[in-house]
Amino acid sequence: MECTHRVAIPPPQPFVKSLKCSLKETFFPDDPLRQFKNQPPSRKLVLGLHYFFPILQWAPRYTFEFLKSDLVSGITVASLAIPQGISYAKLANLPPILGLYSSFVPPLAYAMMGSSRDLAVGTVAVPSLLLASMLGNEVNANENPKLYLHLAFTATFFAGVFQASLGLLRLGFIVDFLSHATIVGFMAGAATVVCLQQLKEILGLDQFTHATDLVSVLRSVFSQTHEWRWESGVLGCCSLFFLISTRYFVGELKKGLNPVSLGDLEFFSPYLKATIKTGIITGVIGFAEGIAVGRSFAMFKNYHIDGNKEMIAFGMMNIAGSCTSCYLTTGPFSRAAVNYSAGCKTALSNIVMAIAVMFTLLFLTPLFHYTPLVVLAAIIISAMLCLIDYEAAIHLWQVDKFDFVVCISAYIGVVFGSVEIGLVIAMAISLLRVLLFIARPRTMVLGNLPNSTIFRNAEQYPNASNVPGVLILQIDAPIYFVNASYLRERIARWIDEEEDRIKSSGETCLQYVIMVMSAVGNIDTSGISMLEEIKKAIDRRGLKLVLANPGGEVMKKLHKSKFVENMGQECIYLTVGEAVAGCKYMLQTCKSNPVIVAETRNLT
Amino acid sequence: MECTHRVAIPPPQPFVKSLKCSLKETFFPDDPLRQFKNQPPSRKLVLGLHYFFPILQWAPRYTFEFLKSDLVSGITVASLAIPQGISYAKLANLPPILGLYSSFVPPLAYAMMGSSRDLAVGTVAVPSLLLASMLGNEVNANENPKLYLHLAFTATFFAGVFQASLGLLRLGFIVDFLSHATIVGFMAGAATVVCLQQLKEILGLDQFTHATDLVSVLRSVFSQTHEWRWESGVLGCCSLFFLISTRYFVGELKKGLNPVSLGDLEFFSPYLKATIKTGIITGVIGFAEGIAVGRSFAMFKNYHIDGNKEMIAFGMMNIAGSCTSCYLTTGPFSRAAVNYSAGCKTALSNIVMAIAVMFTLLFLTPLFHYTPLVVLAAIIISAMLCLIDYEAAIHLWQVDKFDFVVCISAYIGVVFGSVEIGLVIAMAISLLRVLLFIARPRTMVLGNLPNSTIFRNAEQYPNASNVPGVLILQIDAPIYFVNASYLRERIARWIDEEEDRIKSSGETCLQYVIMVMSAVGNIDTSGISMLEEIKKAIDRRGLKLVLANPGGEVMKKLHKSKFVENMGQECIYLTVGEAVAGCKYMLQTCKSNPVIVAETRNLT
Repeated sequence: MECTHRVAIPPPQPFVKSLKCSLKETFFPDDPLRQFKNQPPSRKLVLGLHYFFPILQWAPRYTFEFLKSDLVSGITVASLAIPQGISYAKLANLPPILGLYSSFVPPLAYAMMGSSRDLAVGTVAVPSLLLASMLGNEVNANENPKLYLHLAFTATFFAGVFQASLGLLRLGFIVDFLSHATIVGFMAGAATVVCLQQLKEILGLDQFTHATDLVSVLRSVFSQTHEWRWESGVLGCCSLFFLISTRYFVGELKKGLNPVSLGDLEFFSPYLKATIKTGIITGVIGFAEGIAVGRSFAMFKNYHIDGNKEMIAFGMMNIAGSCTSCYLTTGPFSRAAVNYSAGCKTALSNIVMAIAVMFTLLFLTPLFHYTPLVVLAAIIISAMLCLIDYEAAIHLWQVDKFDFVVCISAYIGVVFGSVEIGLVIAMAISLLRVLLFIARPRTMVLGNLPNSTIFRNAEQYPNASNVPGVLILQIDAPIYFVNASYLRERIARWIDEEEDRIKSSGETCLQYVIMVMSAVGNIDTSGISMLEEIKKAIDRRGLKLVLANPGGEVMKKLHKSKFVENMGQECIYLTVGEAVAGCKYMLQTCKSNPVIVAETRNLT
Repeated sequence: MECTHRVAIPPPQPFVKSLKCSLKETFFPDDPLRQFKNQPPSRKLVLGLHYFFPILQWAPRYTFEFLKSDLVSGITVASLAIPQGISYAKLANLPPILGLYSSFVPPLAYAMMGSSRDLAVGTVAVPSLLLASMLGNEVNANENPKLYLHLAFTATFFAGVFQASLGLLRLGFIVDFLSHATIVGFMAGAATVVCLQQLKEILGLDQFTHATDLVSVLRSVFSQTHEWRWESGVLGCCSLFFLISTRYFVGELKKGLNPVSLGDLEFFSPYLKATIKTGIITGVIGFAEGIAVGRSFAMFKNYHIDGNKEMIAFGMMNIAGSCTSCYLTTGPFSRAAVNYSAGCKTALSNIVMAIAVMFTLLFLTPLFHYTPLVVLAAIIISAMLCLIDYEAAIHLWQVDKFDFVVCISAYIGVVFGSVEIGLVIAMAISLLRVLLFIARPRTMVLGNLPNSTIFRNAEQYPNASNVPGVLILQIDAPIYFVNASYLRERIARWIDEEEDRIKSSGETCLQYVIMVMSAVGNIDTSGISMLEEIKKAIDRRGLKLVLANPGGEVMKKLHKSKFVENMGQECIYLTVGEAVAGCKYMLQTCKSNPVIVAETRNLT
């Protein structure tokens, strides 16, 4: 028998080189330093400045055409930003003016450092709600508004520090752990919670629970039915509703730009731990939304966004914000969508928006004093309702049941527990799925497609036929400690089942087990021990183990651990076809010389 | 162009069926109910009893030959069990007699329920040490020996309950999360710690730290240099050493069998939480060792051990033990090795050992009163030194650097921190590796092996040549939310690099990107969105995306999400060879009709 192709063992690499390579792949997958290669130092400095301040890159090439577009879009976004800002600040139990402050400084910071051309910076609903619920557990915003305000600034500061340092440490990929399904469920849950909170304004209740879960809110609502403003007409009589509810005003709105709040940061308060936790969680949620939005629009317009760079920009923007009376900002979907559809060209639209808000702050704030609370509630609810993306949930159900479970758990967790519980449950289930993929890898029997040397999963290709005397098994995951025992059991069961089947059908008895390693990306020492045990067990049954197409990494380790040597390189084939041909050839030889076979059987 | 093979979409399965199937694979991979199929009810009952009490299976077939072997091996093991039991009980800060009690009842229980023929049951060093360190944090064994003893019984009870319930719930696979590398490092660390603890006896110190970490122990030793029994001759003068140290005796050893300790279980003590935690951790470590040992010997002798069944047996044995003045027992390696080499045949050797220990308890215990502590220390140290398996660590370094890191972290964690810290660190690193495999999957460029239609990794096979105008990329892991963003970046970079290379070398410009999906075991909705984005990005560059060999699960989801429809089934090939042939054919057609190509380029 002649083996046409040998499975190569990759050339050995020095340890330091392979370590460097894998660290690079882990932390610098996008190779951000590529453009710095082979450049003079002065050019490197310029490129470095461009890297951290993209404004230096686009400002020199800015045209009058761009300015026209950016002016229009900036002013459009500002007109959305003002009522939205006030609403979300109320949601965070903060003075409404903070919503305006937060639409002034952070957009300016982002315009310098951000790389998205479509993002319009501002506060967002979910982190606002999170701030209210997490800080509210520590300090009552109504009883001690000043401390609460200071803690909110401090949390924003920590969120900024956390975001910037993750970006600097190239750990932006942790955002990826929030899967699409988690975000769909989480957003819908948060939207539900926010809408429920608006029952306070809509029913005109003075007392309301600080908890966010469905049970507490409903209990709070139904325990004071006598307090319901039945006059507000059970959603029926809109005019009366407005007349009565307009009695409640937003509160005092002072003229003037952002006061400096650097001195308000509370680093030594007893609430430091809660503040840091709030900062980290709101920070993560904040930039998860911002980066997702930025990426979507970048894809539409075909330019590139660097997640880590964006995180640095978001971080710096929040640090700057926390020192100038702003709370957590990011790139909300609604503003980016308005910005995009108004035709923005560069981040200058953020500057325009900031200037528009500045004028409002300087001259127009008293007007907003008369904004009725019920209008704000209506703004919030209408914004929230688009976040309940039930179509996405249906799509998840149709395509991937597991993702649907993740989505629904996030929703239920948020609505019945708290925002954190929902998030933790959904992330735990998502990670469990990843672990389960490795812990319980699929193994399958391959068959021969008619008139070819192609071997494929017999379940997927029902016309694939099995090869007499040979069992071809494919493993669909790396062989690691978490699945080594499982695979040992499972492979033994495959062989048992195949022998049972053969016994009942009277085919040629089993002689070879081919393990197809194409999809085995890696193996660890537990996995190698498992292979050794399987080989022993298969030998003991009087069968022979053959490997097909092990990859470079696997081959390297099998070689180092002497498994290749023990097994014999001639039992490792490059393709399944060649492995089967090799087995068939051996079977043929054995048939023409039955004594050897009998002897082999007796020996084992 | 004719496509010879179509990629099949697996026939749709009802949701309930596929759920049932995957639950079965997760919890019943060994299909324990297989033998119950198609049996009459009476037979099922017998088989069920056999399942839980393997003794019913082997006892009727027991022969005189077996008895001879089991008698010899049982008595041999007993002669080891007695001094070892006393030593380990001292290690756990428990009365030494408990070591003997624990070699009487639990082996009897195991002989009924256990399925290993080689395991000899008894106490083990590491859980003994863990008990001392974890309970010692709550209650001082010297100041309050009675409470400490009761807590030890209670912890043993919880360990038993935990083991049995994991077994009943088919969750035995959590043991798999302790990788081989973790165990090597952990055992070596624990052995080091145990040896350090023996310094107390060897140097004859009265006061000693209760902490187990290296720093505390060394501080404790060197802070009382004046207390050192220099008479013991700084390891030099052995006779003197013995003479002096034999002054310390083991303590009182009462005659008589195990007293009942059911009433001593403390379920309502303030230490309940610590007791449960101790029980769970010692329970896990205990059966991890027991099952690993049982499996190794079963492999030697070619019989099968069911992990879940063993866990039930261990659990019941510890529950029984906790009610009869025993503490945590399992199947220690040393005893099993002695049992095996003395020629044991069945679990009856455990019964013989138990009877031998019973006679000792009834008649011989006063003799052991004169066992010098230093001898016990020597027994422990000599047993521990074999646990420091530095050769295994060297093997890990040679074969798998990551496993070596896991091993060393476990060691360092145990020696410098505590047993729990070491375990948690090592498990976290091991799991991180599994996650990292998915989060940062390897992608590689495939090339054509000379004179074949085989395509393999160009790094592993340096003679593989690339196909002009076609980039063939293989992804080595499932596409999940954790790696979707990474893959998007990485694939874009591959295409960039390929276009740079082509530009500099002046080859045919890139027209096709083939993504080889053979090793992509599964995909979730985030992954599908990523593929859609990649397709758009590739289209926008004027290239064409082609898939090769997607598996059943992937194909099913791509079909459900309409990706197959959008892409066109004709762009999905069964093999890389066919995909390349298809691309070449198209390139040929385009060359002969250059207008179309130019138009296509302009359009994008």
